[in-house]
Amino acid sequence: MSRASGTSRPLRLRPDGWSIEILDQTLLPHREEWVHLTTLQQAVDAIATMQVRGAPLIGVTAAYGLCLALTANASDRALEQATASLLASRPTAVNLAWAVAVVRRAALANGPDQRVRNAYAAAQALAESEAAACRAIGDHGLDLIRDVGDRSSHERPVQILTHCNAGWLATMEYGTALAPVYRAHEEGIPVHVWVAETRPRNQGWLTAWELGVAGISHTVVADNASGHLLQRGEVDLVFVGTDRTTRGGDVCNKVGTCLRALAARDAGVPFYVAAPSSSIDWTITDGMAIPIEERSADEVTHVRGLGPDGRPATVQVAPPGTAVRNFAFDVTPARLVTGLITERGICAASEAGLLGLFPERQV
Amino acid sequence: MSRASGTSRPLRLRPDGWSIEILDQTLLPHREEWVHLTTLQQAVDAIATMQVRGAPLIGVTAAYGLCLALTANASDRALEQATASLLASRPTAVNLAWAVAVVRRAALANGPDQRVRNAYAAAQALAESEAAACRAIGDHGLDLIRDVGDRSSHERPVQILTHCNAGWLATMEYGTALAPVYRAHEEGIPVHVWVAETRPRNQGWLTAWELGVAGISHTVVADNASGHLLQRGEVDLVFVGTDRTTRGGDVCNKVGTCLRALAARDAGVPFYVAAPSSSIDWTITDGMAIPIEERSADEVTHVRGLGPDGRPATVQVAPPGTAVRNFAFDVTPARLVTGLITERGICAASEAGLLGLFPERQV
Repeated sequence: MSRASGTSRPLRLRPDGWSIEILDQTLLPHREEWVHLTTLQQAVDAIATMQVRGAPLIGVTAAYGLCLALTANASDRALEQATASLLASRPTAVNLAWAVAVVRRAALANGPDQRVRNAYAAAQALAESEAAACRAIGDHGLDLIRDVGDRSSHERPVQILTHCNAGWLATMEYGTALAPVYRAHEEGIPVHVWVAETRPRNQGWLTAWELGVAGISHTVVADNASGHLLQRGEVDLVFVGTDRTTRGGDVCNKVGTCLRALAARDAGVPFYVAAPSSSIDWTITDGMAIPIEERSADEVTHVRGLGPDGRPATVQVAPPGTAVRNFAFDVTPARLVTGLITERGICAASEAGLLGLFPERQV
Repeated sequence: MSRASGTSRPLRLRPDGWSIEILDQTLLPHREEWVHLTTLQQAVDAIATMQVRGAPLIGVTAAYGLCLALTANASDRALEQATASLLASRPTAVNLAWAVAVVRRAALANGPDQRVRNAYAAAQALAESEAAACRAIGDHGLDLIRDVGDRSSHERPVQILTHCNAGWLATMEYGTALAPVYRAHEEGIPVHVWVAETRPRNQGWLTAWELGVAGISHTVVADNASGHLLQRGEVDLVFVGTDRTTRGGDVCNKVGTCLRALAARDAGVPFYVAAPSSSIDWTITDGMAIPIEERSADEVTHVRGLGPDGRPATVQVAPPGTAVRNFAFDVTPARLVTGLITERGICAASEAGLLGLFPERQV
């Protein structure tokens, strides 16, 4: 906890200079436990089992995962195998592929004796650039919150609705969707965050935990309640993150995001997506082309929490043998997105909008 | 289990002819346990704690609750007190007030010595009329399913999405939203039901249990996944129930219903509400005037199910002290409803549509 915002980092290099430790998000919000990672396989498992989660953090973890692999074996063959293994750990977030490519390129830039050092330098630079992007997204989003606060005739704090967790737990400091909230809090602008619990993995409770640590006012609701809140004028702005945004502005994010976008549109409430450029997939335009990860039915049929004795416990909510599908993401069409908040500013959710901020992506 | 459909009744008069028993829905889908009710207070508690739930069943339970009160004390004063107590048990469903009014009127029709007998006759008639309404709704909705089946070039069963539980557990046989599904199953039309788990109380698992008992194909998804399913063409028809439908066609139903309506509209999928006339509130036009029940935060912060030992258990999913709001219902504006399926047929969700079927409600 190093900032006025109350934010932190969920991944850090250990004092040994090569191994890393991560805050185990499968144990939060009930227990803060750091896990020490020393091997590629541990990094892959941490991503696949969602000990780390959130597109930017998955990227940084994968970057360091490649470093761990090279530390053990810096051969070409080991590099290829590690790359393949990381890419297969989760399919949807584009940051993962991007981060692995960045570190791989750096590793291959010089001779094999430089590989490990170059890889760590690239991973470190990537982590810092993600942190800087989050801070910049916070500054741009802060303007949106300030505008609402200035215009508002209400006595109430600016009301923000979010989905899933796109705070510092999902990134490197500040987060993406929550970055404007943390910046507003730093600036003394009263804000209140409506947090959707985000079934099936309940990442909303991670958001509640984060905001609680930072002392920011918030209220958790069932995912089903977000339409009601928007309809009744209880929300001024919707901020969500993204696991992959296409060149055309379609947004793939945690399942349920498109329902919130539809409800925001119907209620006339602005719907913004905090999209660091690391999460933009410049190779595709149509969001329907993004592979949607399906995860284990257990995530729906069983719920984890604390038992009456305060120890971790799991209950089964399903009748035995019930068929379940567990889609982890959905796609919000660009037409429902008021704007994308990138580290370079806010733009329309369209190819023209994105290219206005990232002209180097013209083909 | 008395029908080809595999449906049943969740409330029945005991052989003693005056006390009732209910299937305790707080223990389902894990345990089938009938609870014996002999007093007004037990009936009020069963409604408030949701041992019985679903607008039509709440109505029937309240009707018998008044009978139980009169059995103990048939005085004017006891009647007034029982009426007030039942009306306060849950605020949103209109069936409750309607059913209490029907039985109360019957009780008051003759002298005090006839009260108890008249009340039971009225409650019994009301239960039978609800069962008949469900069956008629099933027949009308069956036509919609048949049309899809006939038009479909797919090899797949007709795909229906529902929310919450509006099956026989919520009513007297067949249910409302599920009645067309049961009728289609009886007629041999292949159907598959997508069931939203329906947080926070997970009534989707009740629906899964019901459909499982009847041998009808179904798949449970997180509430958040319904937008994805609709967007990807996985759903042919949406059927939901209603706790109160206004004269103008606005529909108050389980929280999250309006999100499904918005997603169905966006995807061009018909969205039907199964609305027995007992659930229509002819006294109001604007759905925003309906009181929305807020329930205990515990329903969101804690999840009930079975522990690893197969016994009922509860886990806490929230960080301690988190602020929570728990809205039980929301309002779907008439403009998002393709049609209302009543026992008299299907009509537009509008005053004109409803009055076309219920001309006696002209004022």
